[in-house]
Amino acid sequence: MALPPPSLIDGFETFARGIVDTARELSMPHFRGAIDVSLKDDASPVTAVDRMVEAMVRERIQASYPEHGVLGEEYGALRTDAEYVWSIDPIDGTRSFISGWPLWGTLLALLRNGEPVIGLIDMPVLGERWIGRAGQFSTFNGVRCQTSACTRLSDATLYATTPDMFTAEESVVFERVSRAARTRRFGGDCYSYALLAAGHIDAVIEADLKPYDYLALAPVIEAAGGVITDWQGRRLGLNSGGQVIAAASAELHREIVETIQQGA
Amino acid sequence: MALPPPSLIDGFETFARGIVDTARELSMPHFRGAIDVSLKDDASPVTAVDRMVEAMVRERIQASYPEHGVLGEEYGALRTDAEYVWSIDPIDGTRSFISGWPLWGTLLALLRNGEPVIGLIDMPVLGERWIGRAGQFSTFNGVRCQTSACTRLSDATLYATTPDMFTAEESVVFERVSRAARTRRFGGDCYSYALLAAGHIDAVIEADLKPYDYLALAPVIEAAGGVITDWQGRRLGLNSGGQVIAAASAELHREIVETIQQGA
Repeated sequence: MALPPPSLIDGFETFARGIVDTARELSMPHFRGAIDVSLKDDASPVTAVDRMVEAMVRERIQASYPEHGVLGEEYGALRTDAEYVWSIDPIDGTRSFISGWPLWGTLLALLRNGEPVIGLIDMPVLGERWIGRAGQFSTFNGVRCQTSACTRLSDATLYATTPDMFTAEESVVFERVSRAARTRRFGGDCYSYALLAAGHIDAVIEADLKPYDYLALAPVIEAAGGVITDWQGRRLGLNSGGQVIAAASAELHREIVETIQQGA
Repeated sequence: MALPPPSLIDGFETFARGIVDTARELSMPHFRGAIDVSLKDDASPVTAVDRMVEAMVRERIQASYPEHGVLGEEYGALRTDAEYVWSIDPIDGTRSFISGWPLWGTLLALLRNGEPVIGLIDMPVLGERWIGRAGQFSTFNGVRCQTSACTRLSDATLYATTPDMFTAEESVVFERVSRAARTRRFGGDCYSYALLAAGHIDAVIEADLKPYDYLALAPVIEAAGGVITDWQGRRLGLNSGGQVIAAASAELHREIVETIQQGA
């Protein structure tokens, strides 16, 4: 992957931080307040806050970088063939947000030629923020972070948001992988990936994710020393399917991919 | 249930708040730090922090109320036939604590003649605390809270910590109940019950809990307007089994108990 000049990326990162700061200001007053919830075509919930935050992000991008593309959860895709494309999930974990659960986050990524180069995972309630830059490093609240030294599935603490995210076929695979881990736990949405980047948990295996769910995670995890791919071990991009594996090390990642393929 | 005089309970509550303040001071410096973890006989993890917090609580009780009984997760039962018995779970959600997950809590209850009369759910990382007093009311960070108005399972958001907490037989029941809810979600340990008391979620159904896991929850939920019992609809006490239902309203609770019994 050819990286853009650091000075250019510095400017994009500053812009991205500002966006996420504003997203916090917009979303936090509504957390645990009266929230207007509706259901989307796929029966997943969306709130007025999701829409308000995404609209703000799109306006800012349009104003500052009118040639850039945007991909968002609520308002779709625009110019995704541009050199630079932003991906936004205003509230990852809308079900958590609605039920007063603090583990929802705002996800923002910048892609260059289809490859994620900056990722931000922001947890407004917790006041925690992860930023990753491809080819450089990741930070947790401004301090450099790295994944754990775990190299074996039998030593790993593995997370998935819910067993309900898998199809029947995927469940068979998930059971095989997660039962081989030392511990498996549920819950978390984007937060599991953030804790993986900070070295607290070792693996995440999920399915049914959308590009705006995983694109911001990739730079954070990779620049922290981890590996994140689809279930076949391929790098994530705009058109990956929804199956995602994240692992603390290349060895652990390889073992998970091999365990997935055992059933094939 | 004959309640003790309010002035007496006021004193106990002040004492309990002080204990939980100190528990925060002891546990927080170790969160996400190097933690000495070992496995108990039942293969559940315990840390040096669990033991340190419980030892502090037991010393305080011994010093202030030497005639009271104590039941703790780490150091067992003492004088549980006394008029007043304290129940302590120093870190509810030890697996969360170990994996850097913020949703672990300290649980403290006071029982009189076997009935829980004060319950505290303290979430150190979040800075959130629930206190319930039987026959009075519950507070969230000092402000009175109440359960939601949800009366039907088909409208309910239902939580369980993990599907792995159920036996094969219990799983059948859990599937029937949770699939009848509007939404089911996983994760949380004690925090699900706290959010239920604050009106954010509507039901929790779990199994394999110990008395120190559920005794503190009962006054918080009941004094907030909810109902918490075992799976047969019986009030919780020192000798209840590990199956727990909590619901925002009597109607919702009744529907859950009936749904459980459909398979009997």
